[in-house]
Amino acid sequence: MAFNDLSWSPSEKKVARAAFDKALEVALGKTLAEFKKKASDAASFSDMWEIEDYLRQQRRNLEQLFDYRYSQLILVFASLIRKGYLDEKLLAGLSQDKREEISRFLAWHART
Amino acid sequence: MAFNDLSWSPSEKKVARAAFDKALEVALGKTLAEFKKKASDAASFSDMWEIEDYLRQQRRNLEQLFDYRYSQLILVFASLIRKGYLDEKLLAGLSQDKREEISRFLAWHART
Repeated sequence: MAFNDLSWSPSEKKVARAAFDKALEVALGKTLAEFKKKASDAASFSDMWEIEDYLRQQRRNLEQLFDYRYSQLILVFASLIRKGYLDEKLLAGLSQDKREEISRFLAWHART
Repeated sequence: MAFNDLSWSPSEKKVARAAFDKALEVALGKTLAEFKKKASDAASFSDMWEIEDYLRQQRRNLEQLFDYRYSQLILVFASLIRKGYLDEKLLAGLSQDKREEISRFLAWHART
């Protein structure tokens, strides 16, 4: 079965939502910390305009990354793990086939 | 004579450049301080995206404001004074007619 065609049980949806929200919280913490460091180091106009570009890029990346559609979640979770926003252990409540799909994506990415 | 058609003597150009550079320095200090305050207060994604918008707006305003063309300088100096970036005293070395033009813009703006 294709990764975007898996069905999600109520308990899996709960696990998925909690993992997603936790990853969002981690992403917020990391992005805020990086942003605040850059802001605190800024000393010139060009530093500020670089931060403007950085924020635009972050916004685009995060909006693309945090896509809570069940058809996308396998790929989303794999990406979140890869980016260090999600601890794979939080997905323990998902079915074996879903966890295997995620591992396949991670293994594929590690190879490329 | 129209404000954008005045001639600038070498000594006036020197005064103008020094005043312009000083105003740029003041604008940098104020913008940096305001930006750093906002960055330090940021606690959410939407706070960061608001700062992105704020920076874009500042960049546009400042690029428009700091226009060192002799044809524009009278208007530029009046705007810089109005924004609190330039101390009018720094323009003491300019001819009487230039200082009067600047005062006229400021008086006009104060009325509107």
